[in-house]
Amino acid sequence: MVFVKYDSKLKLREQKGSALSEQRSENVVWHGGHVGRADRAERLGQKGGTVWFTGLSGSGKSTIAVAVESALHHIGHHAYRLDGDNVRHGLNGDLGFGAKDRDENIRRVGELSVLMADSGLLVLASFISPFRAERARVRRLHEAADLPFLEVFVDVPLDVAESRDPKGLYRKARAGEIQDFTGIHQPYESPESPELNLPNAELSLQDASSNVINLLRKHGLIPA
Amino acid sequence: MVFVKYDSKLKLREQKGSALSEQRSENVVWHGGHVGRADRAERLGQKGGTVWFTGLSGSGKSTIAVAVESALHHIGHHAYRLDGDNVRHGLNGDLGFGAKDRDENIRRVGELSVLMADSGLLVLASFISPFRAERARVRRLHEAADLPFLEVFVDVPLDVAESRDPKGLYRKARAGEIQDFTGIHQPYESPESPELNLPNAELSLQDASSNVINLLRKHGLIPA
Repeated sequence: MVFVKYDSKLKLREQKGSALSEQRSENVVWHGGHVGRADRAERLGQKGGTVWFTGLSGSGKSTIAVAVESALHHIGHHAYRLDGDNVRHGLNGDLGFGAKDRDENIRRVGELSVLMADSGLLVLASFISPFRAERARVRRLHEAADLPFLEVFVDVPLDVAESRDPKGLYRKARAGEIQDFTGIHQPYESPESPELNLPNAELSLQDASSNVINLLRKHGLIPA
Repeated sequence: MVFVKYDSKLKLREQKGSALSEQRSENVVWHGGHVGRADRAERLGQKGGTVWFTGLSGSGKSTIAVAVESALHHIGHHAYRLDGDNVRHGLNGDLGFGAKDRDENIRRVGELSVLMADSGLLVLASFISPFRAERARVRRLHEAADLPFLEVFVDVPLDVAESRDPKGLYRKARAGEIQDFTGIHQPYESPESPELNLPNAELSLQDASSNVINLLRKHGLIPA
């Protein structure tokens, strides 16, 4: 098990406690203190945090997240993907697609990411999340919890995303069958200073994935 | 790493795929299939699922969950606790304590548990959750996702819980400062067939914790 170094911003309260002491006795642990974030990180050999993929529908967010998940698994790490598929039908199944509900959707996903990152997971969240304010809010939630938040802009031009149209959504939006579609009826606000910019029309999937893995290494979530 | 055996109800789709083949090539994994529940379980040496502690305020749910978490960590497993402390201020910070909001609180915690269990975690959820119908709903969410749900009734008489009153809530409820308090103003509906009954006034914390660990073994979430 490789131990992940912490930067100074992370809470080390638990790490200093008896649970991680080499001299611990079984009884102390058994009855003893809470298992904390640092304990889980040591056990897993990784530091929990969130990679937030943002970009137009059809930009390749989920495809990259799947490749990153596979690469992480292959090198012994524990990741979990969050996207519309596993959130919209369950936790956020009560929400629609109006402005207020889309905002609440992202708020809950942000809180969910915080809890999962706190548990020690590398969270790979793929959501269009077109507005700077909503992404900033999710970032603040992580910062308040002293958890890493890495914004990855999956950057493809609208015409490229629309020509791909893997789910046929642009076609429906152009035909008026979908309202408030990002890029057609509503703006996509590009990140101004994401932790990583992926010009995805120009990168192989393997290169895009490698860049994200390197980002995790650079920020100390997995060992260099 | 110990491999956890699956019972026949669990989906083994991913386990049979190339990602777990001994002959896998790096390229297949890299570009390859989704990492699934079975892959994560193999990596972690445990099967994700939820232990749901239900009982009166002051019954000892969270205390037992802390002890179980510590014991699991000590034997190399990865658990995460959910309770009012980490859910009510974040994900469910928009909810109050009226009947409708309490119902929505438990619904979201149920969905959150499903996602965390799907990620491979042993979820230790401590919520009064006084109504059979709401607990049954959370159970159904897990069953629909083919995930284990183990209901643990932390069973202490009301007078014992009230005499402990660790948070001073019974006193406030008796004084009329809290409305709709379970056991005082509202009924607690005891589980009719929980996976485990813990008569917590008669058990040491270590015995209560051991009983839960044995329950996890019995249901195959951790190796016997």
